Amino acid sequence: MRTDIGHRRIRSSERPPVQFENRGVSVSSSVEPLGREPLVRSVDSPAINDTHQRLLESAVHLFAVRGFHGTGIRDLAAGANLSSATLYHYMGTKERLLFQIMQDALDRLLLAARVIESQSDDVRIRLAGLVRMHVITHALRRDASNVVDNQVSALEPDDRMLIIQQRDSYEKFWADAIAEGVAAGFFTVPDQSAARIALLEMCSGVARWYSVDGRHSPDEIADIHVELAAALLRGCDGRPTWTEPENHLDIHSLVEEIWAIRVPDGKANRAVK
Amino acid sequence: MRTDIGHRRIRSSERPPVQFENRGVSVSSSVEPLGREPLVRSVDSPAINDTHQRLLESAVHLFAVRGFHGTGIRDLAAGANLSSATLYHYMGTKERLLFQIMQDALDRLLLAARVIESQSDDVRIRLAGLVRMHVITHALRRDASNVVDNQVSALEPDDRMLIIQQRDSYEKFWADAIAEGVAAGFFTVPDQSAARIALLEMCSGVARWYSVDGRHSPDEIADIHVELAAALLRGCDGRPTWTEPENHLDIHSLVEEIWAIRVPDGKANRAVK
Repeated sequence: MRTDIGHRRIRSSERPPVQFENRGVSVSSSVEPLGREPLVRSVDSPAINDTHQRLLESAVHLFAVRGFHGTGIRDLAAGANLSSATLYHYMGTKERLLFQIMQDALDRLLLAARVIESQSDDVRIRLAGLVRMHVITHALRRDASNVVDNQVSALEPDDRMLIIQQRDSYEKFWADAIAEGVAAGFFTVPDQSAARIALLEMCSGVARWYSVDGRHSPDEIADIHVELAAALLRGCDGRPTWTEPENHLDIHSLVEEIWAIRVPDGKANRAVK
Repeated sequence: MRTDIGHRRIRSSERPPVQFENRGVSVSSSVEPLGREPLVRSVDSPAINDTHQRLLESAVHLFAVRGFHGTGIRDLAAGANLSSATLYHYMGTKERLLFQIMQDALDRLLLAARVIESQSDDVRIRLAGLVRMHVITHALRRDASNVVDNQVSALEPDDRMLIIQQRDSYEKFWADAIAEGVAAGFFTVPDQSAARIALLEMCSGVARWYSVDGRHSPDEIADIHVELAAALLRGCDGRPTWTEPENHLDIHSLVEEIWAIRVPDGKANRAVK
């Protein structure tokens, strides 16, 4: 097992130029770190003004709290303090607005994942970086994260396909890191795909429960999740006896009785897929 | 470290009588395991007929897909093939319907957790039972699970408080199991509360991605999650070097640059809470 931590720690001053071209959406490389970055900056409208920005921020919040279907045109107009006529000038359709919001959120995640990939040769350090980035942004950008996680089904089919492709591209950074870590003997997981999904659900969950009034800062939550990810991915050296089938409780009967549902037996029907 | 698996494996024939009294909602103990159990059976309306049942099932689906705010009275009536007048007879207000659905879902989870607690002396076996039960029901009752997870904020304050109390009671079974496992030396987690939340998010995530056409059956997914839970809760025997702060990438600068947000430094403000 390799034990060297062969990563390059990148300080701000020596960070390599970031590749900012990303699926037709350009994010300025000259933005001040703490400046007010337009939430969405598409090729169609490179200069997003304050009004558009206000609309986008209000829409993200409304979609997160009331859902896409529960947010009316009047809600959007009122949220951004606009008339309906002005609103249409900025947003096209409500569905396009949702698409823009999701595309922007995923663009940023993809860009961050690419930068992280370039910053260390050690897959464990990169994995820890992915976890930290995902957790911190899901804590600080709760609304946008929840919209991406919960409202995909509200998109039109073509847009939905694009967003799912983008999400898959992002998840591939995680899949590749897990695969590389397993190949190098750093990680031990019974099912890489299931481990990736579980890890992402665990980290995305932060957007559902994080509160600024809570016990931990985003940094502390990120630290905790890196440790949990380490535990999850190192897996069990030898399957512990308490996970063996012969030690299971009879959960089938319990579930069938209390939920009055049929729990299918055994293996999935492989023929389906 | 104790290594004995001192649980009692309960077969259907020897299963102890279940305590079916649970927060004023009675679930019949004589229900046929595969029969058609009313989704909600409150003390106010002990006999739920087929029409009411159809309304509840349709409402769960509508709330899950369109959200509470995105589901109109006309949607509910159309979904259950009822007139608006008949609809009111069954549901009272839309908010009460949401409350009933959530209360029922949590009642079943609480009941199942109580039964599991009574079925083994070994906390690891009980924890595995909780994971299996939670995962299987979140796969097979996706809509209701997603409604409980995502629509709590749509409830009126009093109802919201009751549902949150109920959810806390359910989570206490998980908290107690983790605490007992840590005390017995079976589990090693840096932060029990964070581990519980992460574990529940991971297991609840199944309701967001499970598909009957997928690669795995609910049973297989439950097995995988028991193994992941085991890995997660056993924690790291000695914190691995790649999780140490001095090996972190500079994620703060990255996030501040790409998301144009300020990441607060260091610890949370303890004074807030």
